[in-house]
Amino acid sequence: MKAYVYVSLKKSVLDPQGKTIQGALKKMGYKGLQDVRQGKYFEIALNGGLNRAEAEAEVERIAREVLTNPVIEEFRFSLED
Amino acid sequence: MKAYVYVSLKKSVLDPQGKTIQGALKKMGYKGLQDVRQGKYFEIALNGGLNRAEAEAEVERIAREVLTNPVIEEFRFSLED
Repeated sequence: MKAYVYVSLKKSVLDPQGKTIQGALKKMGYKGLQDVRQGKYFEIALNGGLNRAEAEAEVERIAREVLTNPVIEEFRFSLED
Repeated sequence: MKAYVYVSLKKSVLDPQGKTIQGALKKMGYKGLQDVRQGKYFEIALNGGLNRAEAEAEVERIAREVLTNPVIEEFRFSLED
């Protein structure tokens, strides 16, 4: 089973890295951009020892406790067989 | 319209950052992990000036030409209204 965890800055937190990318893209002539935000992305391969509910709980725990800084970041995740 | 671009290392490229996270998680007692890989994730808000096909082409071009290092990375993206 594979889990995909997406961590991004909360909407209320400024993202200077994203703003820099947006400015660079604009200077390079790319059109139609309103906003760019950057986040992190984790691909976690799970071994067969966990069923779907256990895997979901474990990945949620890892994402919440380790991969995300709850003060400034939020996460979402998905599982795939 | 919003575009989500996911950039990850090619399967054939070693990911020491992911391995470090995996080792740390194992030491912290999380079970069932086989492999962890880290990537980048971009959230791009597009203004209304582009139709869906144009937006798709523009985002694909940005991902290919700017956000990804084609030697070691690969990308996928999705659009959302």
